[in-house]
Amino acid sequence: MDLHFKVNKKSKRNNARLGEFTTKWGVSTTPMFMPVGTQATVKTLNPEELVDAGANVVLSNTYHLWLRPGEDIVDKAGGLHKFMNYTNGPILTDSGGFQVFSLAKEKDIKEEGVYFKSNIDGSNLFLSPEKSIEIQNKLASDIAMSFDECPPYPATYEYMKNSVERTLRWAARGKKVHANNEQALFGIVQGGEYEDLRRYSAIETVKMDFDGYSIGGAAVGETKETQYKEVEYATKYLPEDKIRYLMGVGDPIDLIEGVIRGVDIFDCVAPTRIARHGNAYTRNGKMNIRNQKYKEDFTPIEENCDCYACKNFTRAYIRHCIISEEVLGQRLLSIHNIRFLTKLMEDIRKNIETDTLEEFRDEFKEKYYG
Amino acid sequence: MDLHFKVNKKSKRNNARLGEFTTKWGVSTTPMFMPVGTQATVKTLNPEELVDAGANVVLSNTYHLWLRPGEDIVDKAGGLHKFMNYTNGPILTDSGGFQVFSLAKEKDIKEEGVYFKSNIDGSNLFLSPEKSIEIQNKLASDIAMSFDECPPYPATYEYMKNSVERTLRWAARGKKVHANNEQALFGIVQGGEYEDLRRYSAIETVKMDFDGYSIGGAAVGETKETQYKEVEYATKYLPEDKIRYLMGVGDPIDLIEGVIRGVDIFDCVAPTRIARHGNAYTRNGKMNIRNQKYKEDFTPIEENCDCYACKNFTRAYIRHCIISEEVLGQRLLSIHNIRFLTKLMEDIRKNIETDTLEEFRDEFKEKYYG
Repeated sequence: MDLHFKVNKKSKRNNARLGEFTTKWGVSTTPMFMPVGTQATVKTLNPEELVDAGANVVLSNTYHLWLRPGEDIVDKAGGLHKFMNYTNGPILTDSGGFQVFSLAKEKDIKEEGVYFKSNIDGSNLFLSPEKSIEIQNKLASDIAMSFDECPPYPATYEYMKNSVERTLRWAARGKKVHANNEQALFGIVQGGEYEDLRRYSAIETVKMDFDGYSIGGAAVGETKETQYKEVEYATKYLPEDKIRYLMGVGDPIDLIEGVIRGVDIFDCVAPTRIARHGNAYTRNGKMNIRNQKYKEDFTPIEENCDCYACKNFTRAYIRHCIISEEVLGQRLLSIHNIRFLTKLMEDIRKNIETDTLEEFRDEFKEKYYG
Repeated sequence: MDLHFKVNKKSKRNNARLGEFTTKWGVSTTPMFMPVGTQATVKTLNPEELVDAGANVVLSNTYHLWLRPGEDIVDKAGGLHKFMNYTNGPILTDSGGFQVFSLAKEKDIKEEGVYFKSNIDGSNLFLSPEKSIEIQNKLASDIAMSFDECPPYPATYEYMKNSVERTLRWAARGKKVHANNEQALFGIVQGGEYEDLRRYSAIETVKMDFDGYSIGGAAVGETKETQYKEVEYATKYLPEDKIRYLMGVGDPIDLIEGVIRGVDIFDCVAPTRIARHGNAYTRNGKMNIRNQKYKEDFTPIEENCDCYACKNFTRAYIRHCIISEEVLGQRLLSIHNIRFLTKLMEDIRKNIETDTLEEFRDEFKEKYYG
């Protein structure tokens, strides 16, 4: 499916760009952060809370939905949007590749696909490029991903080269069976920290003419500097008129740096995961609400934040909920953290408009790490 | 504080009555079910969801809030309503008596109060009638409870007699120190299964002239028949013009039977507790959403239910969330179960209006136990 992506403005000073794309759910604006609904629900939240927190595209995980409840049930429900009642924006599904490599047990990577054991019940499973696309077709997401190998970091040049070549062959196989005309399909650029492999992966993937391009394996343990370089290596060879998606990256600073390097969309479990452990993003850095000093602090998590949590609850109350293991505390921090990132993207977009994103980054970093 | 309770209609066939009382939060209608927010939050839900599910009075637990975050912090926050941002109706606090007897460790009941160890950190604690009232004053609930002993079931006549007498002395001591003019104070009738002790407890408690009367120790393991008798033993001696509160009772049938015996308000953790284990109330009986047969069931939990869960999600989806241990599943079932009970109370009130509550009960039971 054509996403009708268009770049509305490009920075004259760096690779940042303002864009938009269109699906049957309406117009989506980039750069954008996508919250992750691993098992067809963004942990602890309902769809209205996502919209209220400024979310548009939601990501869901093919691997998890394949195992539970199974793609056929989602299909019978009328697709993922209907199943999870998310009708306010597009849904993007990943390919399952990352989860196979991070969660699955006893995996055996062959040319035909990956044999492994389920992380839930230990049963024998097999995922291939064709199977991943078939599942994503049934999930009826708006944007699907090609099945790739996400190699560990660090990996030797030799390993990475073989892996990149196999991922290219897998991408071609997936594209061949991609049957859903209402679903866009992205190719994934791998290559780890190796400039020539990222270049090779990008150029060869682009040759296959996907609806958009993802940068994978850039949030698997490398330093920020290495991650930024990996992004640069890849974006250089990606077409201007297609969406660029940096997978699994959600640290506030990394979002700004990614946009400066030409990335359009991002996803990460961090805002909801750190929330469940009692952490909140603020412009003055990450805050652990469990800290004793918030015990009698009757101010919101962040002054001037327009999220539901900040408008209605105090640090003292949220701390009490987190310490007492009450779900509402996790909900409130999740809402705040998602809103923090969607608001950050709004500010990023404003600063692309005025071409002041680098100044914005410097100021943001100073306060955030201050 | 005078709750301005008035009975608007009395059944000619049984002791059911329609009533209302007034607090600064407005008029509350009885008979009514109150959801429980143990630690200043009704588990998994936010205040708007409670209101949306038809809740009015919310109960919170003195024992839990005393231990965490501590009554002084709630006081500094401006009271429990402000602390938990519940401003849509009154808050009732219990006395801590029940939790001391069900949760506390190594308890030693003396005339002055109860010595015990915290269930959280094992520290030495002491709760007395005066201390319980002092804590509740600081929590600034609208309705407070006298500190009582909630004896186990079964208990010998001798034990119960001594306990009832001590609870009467404790009630008098608590009333003496009750300093908050904006807070109503209820006395608690104990006496277990013994008719003469319930009568004695009721008559002596009423002599002290409280703002309302609770029936305690009627949901501690006895059969339904015994529970109903205990309620009858007590209500017979309670004044018509004061609220009667049956503590800890929330089984749908028990709510109807309690109302028929003259009870006005009820509370129970059941609707949210059973939700967290995947159970939903329906007019056709309790349903366990984990059941395999709901795997591809794309209907709501209950047809014609107007709750948020039923209007927006299917059994298949909620089952998936519960099986996958996703909080949203618990939230949706909690909302449904609270709405089920508030809707049941609406139906009960309608049937008092037409004096058909016994027919309603018979029909309800037939469907519920099917």
